[in-house]
Amino acid sequence: MTIDQYRLEEEPTYHPSGDEVAFYESAYAARLPVMLKGPTGCGKTRFVEHMAWRLGKPLITVSCHEDMTASDLVGRFLLGPEGTHWQDGPLTMAVRHGAICYLDEVVEARQDTTVVIHSLTDDRRILPLEKKGELVHAHPDFQLVISYNPGYQSVLKDLKESTKQRFSAVDFTYPMASVEASIVASEADVSADIADKLVKIAEKSRHLRGQGLEEGASTRMLIHAGRLIKTGMTLTDACKHAIIVPITDDPDMRGALDAVVDACA
Amino acid sequence: MTIDQYRLEEEPTYHPSGDEVAFYESAYAARLPVMLKGPTGCGKTRFVEHMAWRLGKPLITVSCHEDMTASDLVGRFLLGPEGTHWQDGPLTMAVRHGAICYLDEVVEARQDTTVVIHSLTDDRRILPLEKKGELVHAHPDFQLVISYNPGYQSVLKDLKESTKQRFSAVDFTYPMASVEASIVASEADVSADIADKLVKIAEKSRHLRGQGLEEGASTRMLIHAGRLIKTGMTLTDACKHAIIVPITDDPDMRGALDAVVDACA
Amino acid sequence: MTIDQYRLEEEPTYHPSGDEVAFYESAYAARLPVMLKGPTGCGKTRFVEHMAWRLGKPLITVSCHEDMTASDLVGRFLLGPEGTHWQDGPLTMAVRHGAICYLDEVVEARQDTTVVIHSLTDDRRILPLEKKGELVHAHPDFQLVISYNPGYQSVLKDLKESTKQRFSAVDFTYPMASVEASIVASEADVSADIADKLVKIAEKSRHLRGQGLEEGASTRMLIHAGRLIKTGMTLTDACKHAIIVPITDDPDMRGALDAVVDACA
Amino acid sequence: MTIDQYRLEEEPTYHPSGDEVAFYESAYAARLPVMLKGPTGCGKTRFVEHMAWRLGKPLITVSCHEDMTASDLVGRFLLGPEGTHWQDGPLTMAVRHGAICYLDEVVEARQDTTVVIHSLTDDRRILPLEKKGELVHAHPDFQLVISYNPGYQSVLKDLKESTKQRFSAVDFTYPMASVEASIVASEADVSADIADKLVKIAEKSRHLRGQGLEEGASTRMLIHAGRLIKTGMTLTDACKHAIIVPITDDPDMRGALDAVVDACA
Amino acid sequence: MTIDQYRLEEEPTYHPSGDEVAFYESAYAARLPVMLKGPTGCGKTRFVEHMAWRLGKPLITVSCHEDMTASDLVGRFLLGPEGTHWQDGPLTMAVRHGAICYLDEVVEARQDTTVVIHSLTDDRRILPLEKKGELVHAHPDFQLVISYNPGYQSVLKDLKESTKQRFSAVDFTYPMASVEASIVASEADVSADIADKLVKIAEKSRHLRGQGLEEGASTRMLIHAGRLIKTGMTLTDACKHAIIVPITDDPDMRGALDAVVDACA
Amino acid sequence: MTIDQYRLEEEPTYHPSGDEVAFYESAYAARLPVMLKGPTGCGKTRFVEHMAWRLGKPLITVSCHEDMTASDLVGRFLLGPEGTHWQDGPLTMAVRHGAICYLDEVVEARQDTTVVIHSLTDDRRILPLEKKGELVHAHPDFQLVISYNPGYQSVLKDLKESTKQRFSAVDFTYPMASVEASIVASEADVSADIADKLVKIAEKSRHLRGQGLEEGASTRMLIHAGRLIKTGMTLTDACKHAIIVPITDDPDMRGALDAVVDACA
Repeated sequence: MTIDQYRLEEEPTYHPSGDEVAFYESAYAARLPVMLKGPTGCGKTRFVEHMAWRLGKPLITVSCHEDMTASDLVGRFLLGPEGTHWQDGPLTMAVRHGAICYLDEVVEARQDTTVVIHSLTDDRRILPLEKKGELVHAHPDFQLVISYNPGYQSVLKDLKESTKQRFSAVDFTYPMASVEASIVASEADVSADIADKLVKIAEKSRHLRGQGLEEGASTRMLIHAGRLIKTGMTLTDACKHAIIVPITDDPDMRGALDAVVDACA
Repeated sequence: MTIDQYRLEEEPTYHPSGDEVAFYESAYAARLPVMLKGPTGCGKTRFVEHMAWRLGKPLITVSCHEDMTASDLVGRFLLGPEGTHWQDGPLTMAVRHGAICYLDEVVEARQDTTVVIHSLTDDRRILPLEKKGELVHAHPDFQLVISYNPGYQSVLKDLKESTKQRFSAVDFTYPMASVEASIVASEADVSADIADKLVKIAEKSRHLRGQGLEEGASTRMLIHAGRLIKTGMTLTDACKHAIIVPITDDPDMRGALDAVVDACA
Repeated sequence: MTIDQYRLEEEPTYHPSGDEVAFYESAYAARLPVMLKGPTGCGKTRFVEHMAWRLGKPLITVSCHEDMTASDLVGRFLLGPEGTHWQDGPLTMAVRHGAICYLDEVVEARQDTTVVIHSLTDDRRILPLEKKGELVHAHPDFQLVISYNPGYQSVLKDLKESTKQRFSAVDFTYPMASVEASIVASEADVSADIADKLVKIAEKSRHLRGQGLEEGASTRMLIHAGRLIKTGMTLTDACKHAIIVPITDDPDMRGALDAVVDACA
Repeated sequence: MTIDQYRLEEEPTYHPSGDEVAFYESAYAARLPVMLKGPTGCGKTRFVEHMAWRLGKPLITVSCHEDMTASDLVGRFLLGPEGTHWQDGPLTMAVRHGAICYLDEVVEARQDTTVVIHSLTDDRRILPLEKKGELVHAHPDFQLVISYNPGYQSVLKDLKESTKQRFSAVDFTYPMASVEASIVASEADVSADIADKLVKIAEKSRHLRGQGLEEGASTRMLIHAGRLIKTGMTLTDACKHAIIVPITDDPDMRGALDAVVDACA
Repeated sequence: MTIDQYRLEEEPTYHPSGDEVAFYESAYAARLPVMLKGPTGCGKTRFVEHMAWRLGKPLITVSCHEDMTASDLVGRFLLGPEGTHWQDGPLTMAVRHGAICYLDEVVEARQDTTVVIHSLTDDRRILPLEKKGELVHAHPDFQLVISYNPGYQSVLKDLKESTKQRFSAVDFTYPMASVEASIVASEADVSADIADKLVKIAEKSRHLRGQGLEEGASTRMLIHAGRLIKTGMTLTDACKHAIIVPITDDPDMRGALDAVVDACA
Repeated sequence: MTIDQYRLEEEPTYHPSGDEVAFYESAYAARLPVMLKGPTGCGKTRFVEHMAWRLGKPLITVSCHEDMTASDLVGRFLLGPEGTHWQDGPLTMAVRHGAICYLDEVVEARQDTTVVIHSLTDDRRILPLEKKGELVHAHPDFQLVISYNPGYQSVLKDLKESTKQRFSAVDFTYPMASVEASIVASEADVSADIADKLVKIAEKSRHLRGQGLEEGASTRMLIHAGRLIKTGMTLTDACKHAIIVPITDDPDMRGALDAVVDACA
């Protein structure tokens, strides 16, 4: 139950698309908090894993959700055989032991969660554990990273300006076709030819976004399709089960996607 | 109280309608998360039971609902004679011991529940028990399955794109007439003739869907009617009690359904 | 605190109006879940008591309400002198010991309550106690019964189709005049003449339903009036206190009901 | 902490306005649940105290409110030096020991509270303590009384028909002038002349109801004014402080009420 | 931790504006509950402190808010080294020991809080501690006082008629200029000349109420300005920081208030 | 865990923009509560740190949020090896030991939090710990400071007049260009030339406020950009990651900001 369980054992492969690696290294050197902006499934989680491995720091990832409270991040008293003892939450563990703490989709969390990070994201770099009456000064290696999907935000649910302005940020999007194909080929262990076909299907699906499709096929879906092909399934069936059926129930949109697959298969 | 109580003792009979068995075997081989899409009572639960039996894995089923929290899935501390101890929830039990975990109607659950499954449905295959400060790496046999009824979703209550895109999916619908009749005959222990009549009644009721009827009679209802007939009730009375009275209170719709039964009896 | 406290000691008198007794016996023989449909105060609770007595099974009745949770039905851990122990809820008690469990106005309960009954109302007949990590297989005598008042349902609060389709159902309404009069005469211990007059008043009040009156006088109200008469009150005063004042405050409606009583007294 | 602390030591004076005493005696003889209907401050609480004294039964009064839960009425487990013990709530105490239980403004309570009383208000006369797994059979002396203010109900907050129909009911309103004057004279210990003046003022204020005044002056307010006069205050000042200032802030309405007081003083 | 900590050690100075002292003495003599009506910062809290000192009674003040529950007023069980013990809340402490209990802005509290005071504000003068199963009879010296700001009430949040009619009431408003000036001079220890100027500024600000200003400067703000002047600040700067900046951000309104200050300085 | 951990060890540098230091010294001398008004990231937190250091007092800062309760500020009972003990919250700690308590963005907190400070912000200077039955008299050095961002308030969420009028207040805004440049140069350790360029960019961004940008770049963002430059990044890239990407996703606004950076670089 130590911080070491959060160290990555193997290098998570990552194919850069722009200046994101250099930016992250600068931001980490200056210990600036970092915001990763971009759509679902385009590699933000993989990127932060890669950077943590590269910098040799433990990584504590927390998937945020609307029922998450500040206590879930910071910690709480638990009742044991000898009365209560304090259990550090994932954020406190990172702050104390110098990990990178990655709050995935932080905007989903309740406001108390976002306010908790304020004193960690300015010059104070402290975390007050109010329930315990302790002020934790952040370990020099500690850094905070959050992800943010611009397509999901609404007036009701957005980061406050006073939170946004605490972060330096970098944009993510789907990788270029050649990069994406090599990701799919290596992750799903399929041929370059199949990977190319899957990427073409994905690109066409992404053009349908906003025309009845909420989002196009992500790189993750292409890897899924590749893995089904690897078990012996046809490319058409694999695309049906890994891409088309999951993202739409609309008969017309399914027809359009079927046609896309047929054209590329 | 071991994982073995979740093993199926007898084969759950299942009558395939398409390529769903082959798809599932591929998806399980690639350990892809699976989403079963389709209306109420058409056999999704039976299918996953059948596949678990076929693959020889324990099956832990959780019926989701809007008051379900992440703790209900993951586990919690309980107070015992020697202070608190941790009690694994059904999802954690499946993750640790290599069961198939089936979250029925997952869209009904609160968002924290769906976010909890994110790190289990990508390459990480880990489940962080934040309250316990433990990272559980999934057993190699573990697989996650969810069901999803497209007819029930609304703008307010739908899976997020970032959740949907983690699953490979297969469509379910009512079985073909001949398949459905043999299911009814074997499950209710009635003659082929009675089973045929019940299936005809069901098909006609399904055409009334959207004309004042929310859904047509499911296969389950036909089995219920068959079992009432088996106790000596007439087909007309059995259809009244097992099909018509449960699904509608509208006098006109009841009249239309009575006419359907009279025509087929 | 055993299951025996839920056995009925005396036969609850019940006057059948249709085929409901035969239907219930068939449904119980097939162990189908049963839904009793009908308005307030027309004898649904009495019917299920009668059937439980007739079949010689214990009966556990739960009045559902919007603050009822799944734990209220299933059970919870309680803290005692030697740490926590598990306390079965009423549903679990029925499932373990083979009682009939009657959930009165189940649609009022929160959704987690209705989802809890899903695995008990299909072929599995199991109740997972997730907090305890136990799977309870239903006793062969166990049966689930729910009541449902069609006049009360709204778009916001209705049983889901996937719940409705698990039940066989029977309609209840007010009994025929002669049957109702004999119920009133025997329950309130009044003469047949008085009972006839009360039933006539009730029938006329039921015609006013929808014309400013939410529901007409129920059989229960007639029995109340009869009992007040038995203490020496006049029929007019008894109808005022037991029927008119409770159901309306509108002066015109009160006048109409006074006229009905005068005409029948 | 016994039931005896709920016995009334002195007779609460009560001035009947109609047949309410005879009705209550009949309803109690038949053990019918009773509903007292009428506006604020016209003596419903005093009436039920009087009847409890007259019948020699203990009286347990509960003021209902929208945060009241079923547990507040029924009881709960409390943690003591030897683990948890069960603490009967006020309703359970009344049910066990044969008190009259008066739920004041029951419509304010949450629905679980009103559903809890269902099994006590039909022939079963039982109270299931689900958390404790106990069925309490009501003491033969137990009776349930509720109050209901028709002027307060709204579509959102009203008793359900299935609750209303369980009660016999009696109307309350302000007493006749001569009765009200003798109440004021005796309760405030003022002369008949002053009491008459106060009653005239009240009557005129009640005519202003609906013309900018939510309710007229209640009998209680007249007694308050009388008691201030008894300390040496003028009738005009007493009416200002005990009647006018509490019920309105509107300058015109205050002027109208000042004029009423001047005319009667 | 005794009731004596609630006794006032020094006389709180109070400058009467009308008959409020005489009224309060009468109301206390008759033990009538009292409602103090008026705007923010005009001396209601100071008045009740003065009266408690004058009558030689302890004073327990509770600032009400929308998250306050009945338990916060009445008390609760706390877990100590020897199991739970009961902790009286501030209201119960006042009821038992004969203090004046002042509920400031009671309308802000949840309804259960206002219902709790019903049985204390009629002839019963009792407080049922339902969780403890105890009926507390009020000490003869106990009195209940509430404050009420008519300008704040809305349809959604107002005292119920059945609560209002339990109180005798007195109006508060800003004191006359000469009275207010002597309050400011003595409380802030400034010259009569400065106090006069501040009062003139306040009066002009109060005329701007409703023209873009929610409320004018209260007596409290004038004292604040006086105290800043006492530290050496100019009258203009003191008015800026103690009056203008706190109450408005609107540039035009700030300009108008600046002009008011310049004209009076 | 003593009050001393809240003393500032080094002087927080602060560049005054107006009379705020003198005002604060006066307000502290008179022990008036202080409200700091102004937009995000313009130095309010740094100012109060500077003043606490200057006055030699400990500083307890609390970031308020909408899930914060009065108990989070005041304290609560915690269960330890010898039963419960009371844990002072941050406000109580400040009140007892004479610290300055800074409630950052207090308007975000729930109402019970703002009401708790009422008795600390008038002449009483007391804090009632109602759950503990203790009245804490404030230490003579205690002072309360709150921040308030006028641009964020809405009708639904604003301080009540009765709260606002308890504070003396001072306005904050972005510092003058020359002051801001010297802050950036010293905090980010960059040349005056770079600091000047960054300030020019910020000023232009602030003119875009309300034209699609919620707020312009804060001083904090300029320091971030400076620090990235210090690691070797170009000014253009540093502005992209530290200013543009964090505050907007709109392509047109990004173009406008890119042009601003190009023009100043």
